[in-house]
Amino acid sequence: MKHRIALVGFGTVGQGLAEILLEKREYLKTRYGYEFDIVGISDIAWGTAYNPDGLDITAMLNAAKAKQKFSQDLKDWDALTMIRKCNATVVCELAFTDLETGEPAISHCKAAFETGKHVVTSNKGPAALAYTDLKAMAEKKGLRFLIEGTVMSGTPVLNLAEGPLAGCEITAALGILNGTTNYILTQMEAGMSYEDALKKAQELGYAEADPTGDVEGYDARGKVTILANVVMNTSLRIEDVSCKGITHITPEDIEKAKEENCRWKLIGSVKKEGDKVKASVAPEMVPLSHPLAGVMGATNAITFATDLLGEVSVVGPGAGRKETGFSILTDLLRLHR
Amino acid sequence: MKHRIALVGFGTVGQGLAEILLEKREYLKTRYGYEFDIVGISDIAWGTAYNPDGLDITAMLNAAKAKQKFSQDLKDWDALTMIRKCNATVVCELAFTDLETGEPAISHCKAAFETGKHVVTSNKGPAALAYTDLKAMAEKKGLRFLIEGTVMSGTPVLNLAEGPLAGCEITAALGILNGTTNYILTQMEAGMSYEDALKKAQELGYAEADPTGDVEGYDARGKVTILANVVMNTSLRIEDVSCKGITHITPEDIEKAKEENCRWKLIGSVKKEGDKVKASVAPEMVPLSHPLAGVMGATNAITFATDLLGEVSVVGPGAGRKETGFSILTDLLRLHR
Repeated sequence: MKHRIALVGFGTVGQGLAEILLEKREYLKTRYGYEFDIVGISDIAWGTAYNPDGLDITAMLNAAKAKQKFSQDLKDWDALTMIRKCNATVVCELAFTDLETGEPAISHCKAAFETGKHVVTSNKGPAALAYTDLKAMAEKKGLRFLIEGTVMSGTPVLNLAEGPLAGCEITAALGILNGTTNYILTQMEAGMSYEDALKKAQELGYAEADPTGDVEGYDARGKVTILANVVMNTSLRIEDVSCKGITHITPEDIEKAKEENCRWKLIGSVKKEGDKVKASVAPEMVPLSHPLAGVMGATNAITFATDLLGEVSVVGPGAGRKETGFSILTDLLRLHR
Repeated sequence: MKHRIALVGFGTVGQGLAEILLEKREYLKTRYGYEFDIVGISDIAWGTAYNPDGLDITAMLNAAKAKQKFSQDLKDWDALTMIRKCNATVVCELAFTDLETGEPAISHCKAAFETGKHVVTSNKGPAALAYTDLKAMAEKKGLRFLIEGTVMSGTPVLNLAEGPLAGCEITAALGILNGTTNYILTQMEAGMSYEDALKKAQELGYAEADPTGDVEGYDARGKVTILANVVMNTSLRIEDVSCKGITHITPEDIEKAKEENCRWKLIGSVKKEGDKVKASVAPEMVPLSHPLAGVMGATNAITFATDLLGEVSVVGPGAGRKETGFSILTDLLRLHR
């Protein structure tokens, strides 16, 4: 069966995915028997293109890179209309993240499920705010809602827990889930002030012009909520997760940690306590001997505590064009299996 | 469908697996729809028991723990006869490891495939010496040869590469694959002599009375061969892997590493170089900033270098009763999916 893919959002992640699919078309076919067409792309900047027999991906990529509207297969449709009307088997939701309302991504996911299409997304909005509802909606229709890319981009976390770790009970998860704050803390440890480290993170493109979402811990809080709901099969709301960022960490705090053979990390934590799941985001002094202590710069990591394996940690990239593009590919292949 | 399991070997791993299956029977059914009977167990010490409708696992565990022969459902069969005659759908090969000949495990695997049964094993013998042949034999019959437990016990490595990392090209793998030598190096760094550290490892049950297989790197070499063949889809022979152990590391070497902000680790390495795959085991001075440097004691770890994600590392247990028992369960669930 040839998979028919629709992309909602054709920014960094959408283009990254399209490039990977283009480069790896033969490899995916030979190695995994995976064949596909991208039939629709809708982007707020470049318009909506649709061809039920498959779009010319190279032309679409060229248009987007030249910051021009699509010129082939153009339709007068918004994203919702494309999702409903297209013949895709799977919708990749790659539009912008809104952790307050989850929109427009939640509506995109619902429209896909209503019209019989799987959803794969790296968008934290629907995953953090509406996972339980959207998953139930998908399952009712025999569809999948796959979200590997919402936590640590393509580094295996959710698919690790649901795949190779299946059979283990995961009793806790501790993670460094935000690369920007980890980069800032790494620079502060090397002697920089918070303000200078933030500025450097912005120059490198790690932090946004308004860094609030990262430095106040909101981004990590969204990911912690997702982890709790996927890995512990609960229905935690984002407002149930206590949240403290790194803006109050002083050079004195950094020194104090060094003296105690520790290192500050912004830790997202989910723990089973009896029937309840407790979750939080807060800076913690981590002993240097802990696997998370050595995770520096923009790298992310997570440690799962399990009943049968004890602690298992994964360390990998938390963001990036190709890295997040791959997170979508890995879920597309999971759909294929 | 109810899976019918035969266990060949009922020592630490076999008993660990049986305990997990017994404890988790309801959980596996509810969560994954996984139902099973253990229909046969053959052990060189406790004999062979077989019941096509399922054995009484508790009774079998009690016999083995009391170091007594099985008394129920006893058959006058050796392991090979049980494999051939039983009605199992899957054979778990958990007999002793022989890295010279691979026997009797290789014959066990072949008999299973010949009579239409999947094989799951944590035995490095057949995996390191005959992976390509056994896999081909299995595939010809529409069967699976699954071996997660041969590298880092139940910590996801091979199923990680073949599952959530599918779609990435793995260009290199670097790992700490032997817990005994890592424990000895950790103790030497804390000031112990090689001899004292080895003695302590033996007292703790990490090292065998004859520690050659661990300290000369042969155990790690078996795992490196397996990694190369599974993850890089090649046909490397164990004798193609250069191998050097830790017996020549001196306290002076340990000091020298400290001065250079490094730490000695016995590193198993597999690298694609053009069309070739190069593999080795040798002690290396790893910079403290590398994710593998912080892996201390009996813990194992592996770093995959990939085309789309850069470096992804997994850290977890490398051995243990429950841990290796789980490695079999994870492959049984993979068969089930």
